[in-house]
Amino acid sequence: MTVNPTLVEAWRGGIVESAHRGALAIVDVDGTVHTALGDIERPIFPRSAIKVLQALPLVESGAADRLRLSDEELALACASHGGEERHARTAAGMLAKAGVDVSALECGAHWPYHDASIKAMAARGEQPTALNNNCSGKHSGFVCLGCLLADGRDVRAFLRGYVQPDHPVMREVTAAVQTATGYDLAHTARGTDGCSIPTYAIPLRQLAHGFARAASGIGLSPGRAAAAARLRRAVARAPFMVGGSGRFDTRVMQALGERVFCKVGAEGVYCAALPWAGLGVAVKIDDGNTARACEVTMAALIEGLVPLASDAERSLLGGLSDLTLRNWRGLDVGRLAAHEALRRLAAGAKRSTA
Amino acid sequence: MTVNPTLVEAWRGGIVESAHRGALAIVDVDGTVHTALGDIERPIFPRSAIKVLQALPLVESGAADRLRLSDEELALACASHGGEERHARTAAGMLAKAGVDVSALECGAHWPYHDASIKAMAARGEQPTALNNNCSGKHSGFVCLGCLLADGRDVRAFLRGYVQPDHPVMREVTAAVQTATGYDLAHTARGTDGCSIPTYAIPLRQLAHGFARAASGIGLSPGRAAAAARLRRAVARAPFMVGGSGRFDTRVMQALGERVFCKVGAEGVYCAALPWAGLGVAVKIDDGNTARACEVTMAALIEGLVPLASDAERSLLGGLSDLTLRNWRGLDVGRLAAHEALRRLAAGAKRSTA
Repeated sequence: MTVNPTLVEAWRGGIVESAHRGALAIVDVDGTVHTALGDIERPIFPRSAIKVLQALPLVESGAADRLRLSDEELALACASHGGEERHARTAAGMLAKAGVDVSALECGAHWPYHDASIKAMAARGEQPTALNNNCSGKHSGFVCLGCLLADGRDVRAFLRGYVQPDHPVMREVTAAVQTATGYDLAHTARGTDGCSIPTYAIPLRQLAHGFARAASGIGLSPGRAAAAARLRRAVARAPFMVGGSGRFDTRVMQALGERVFCKVGAEGVYCAALPWAGLGVAVKIDDGNTARACEVTMAALIEGLVPLASDAERSLLGGLSDLTLRNWRGLDVGRLAAHEALRRLAAGAKRSTA
Repeated sequence: MTVNPTLVEAWRGGIVESAHRGALAIVDVDGTVHTALGDIERPIFPRSAIKVLQALPLVESGAADRLRLSDEELALACASHGGEERHARTAAGMLAKAGVDVSALECGAHWPYHDASIKAMAARGEQPTALNNNCSGKHSGFVCLGCLLADGRDVRAFLRGYVQPDHPVMREVTAAVQTATGYDLAHTARGTDGCSIPTYAIPLRQLAHGFARAASGIGLSPGRAAAAARLRRAVARAPFMVGGSGRFDTRVMQALGERVFCKVGAEGVYCAALPWAGLGVAVKIDDGNTARACEVTMAALIEGLVPLASDAERSLLGGLSDLTLRNWRGLDVGRLAAHEALRRLAAGAKRSTA
């Protein structure tokens, strides 16, 4: 494996305690690499970072219209949410519109990611269901798509096994990802994701190209371009749904609205669309660290690339790309910060975008 | 920073999805490097991996004897425990022997690491205290040491600020670490640990040497050598206390007893003593991943180095150095495994030890 450069450093006592290496690609609508760092040609599993691409058929097919899905519901279809009560209730609402219930979901159950929700559920003596799974919105979107594709057949029977690569629902989803990224998914590594759907290995270059297309609509069919625009708008209007309380994606899109669409994925993957610049971004941290390395990297890129309109916006992004680390007593013990080379790169990318 | 080799790989769909780089040193009692991989000269913060060295003054001073500390209590003084009820109760018992209570602890409070304990406490409407802090045993040990050092003065007043580098308690602790590792702590980087005590940057080579000394007693004063032997024996007799339910250190030492003493630290550090071979081991994962990268590395080293006596032991270590990754539905989606180079190294190290 190529040795990628350091993107993020954890500082303590004046020295670098730990460091995260990785690669990133910023690509325009023509597929031209605008900015890159590290190996952007090695296929990587995008995991949940491409949920917005996987949700395209839900809108393009007409299923979202037929079931009158709201902005909240469409945003949830693109989400890795915290499993908070509002997320779970919204997923249940989507399933109800499709005429089924939680038992249709094939993502598995897990406790909410959102800490206070875990404790609240434990205090009420509740156990988590598939509605609390961070992917329940995406899966509910699959179910809604399946509801349309069933085309008069028994929906529940039709849906069974929708997570399998050859199921009609997953064929539509995979085709959308392939068209957007322009990468041949039939001849690349295929893994099984945490929520049991297939995940296909795609290079960062093509992932970023896919997000440039989703950002601009250019290079997509008119129907798919309209679907991408609608999903981006839905997330900008309902950013709580795409993540949740305190979550990076939610905080960033609450502040910046449609200026950026960013989405985290497991194992250190992040993708973003910058509609105003017609650019797509894809990041992979080598060691798979999502929580700290990806977020700091993405914050530094957004800080460098996106025109920020106020001190509040600059302060938010500055605080996300250079965090103070505090210990159990709240003492300042260090920093988690974008590497100088990443900052320079983001600033350079901005100049060449301006 | 030097580019260290890959030690652990996460596999999915037949490819390496993420990888962890790091360095390791295996050193004998003379300080001779037996086996090494990567940069073992760069000073790193050992964090909680050296709690057994930090506990030496508690025993050597006579405080442990005077307060009649049990094996459970001494093991807890070396622990990063899960904050389970038994851990918290044992820490409270140590404080009671010193004539103080939880308010003497300066480690801060946090929810238990142990998942079921979080939910049980939430269900009972409880909030965590400093007794649940994973370092509460170490800090209770500091308090017991301070109780002796107070030497007739008011214990509570004397203890105040015991986490500060210049407090008599912390001076004793730091001196013990310096003597064991042979590294000059007055002229190296000093950070503040998660539990508010100082942590000093020490190269892996010297950390491993310190554990070789703790493993054998050779190179330590007779009193300190006896203290090290007593702490190792206490942990071997009460391995639940050093970690807790399901925890790596606990499982390994429950199975292997005094054949290995291993201890995890934050930010990807692991140290171990192999008393039968007179060797010390120190590992640092570059990216700071403790939960998966350190444990797999240490399991591969133990599997390679330690004579395993039964199929059960081989099966335990094999399962810890090459884990099946399962998703939310329990499907096998990949592996987390020691890199081939690490396996070869561990096997080579065993041959040269035999």
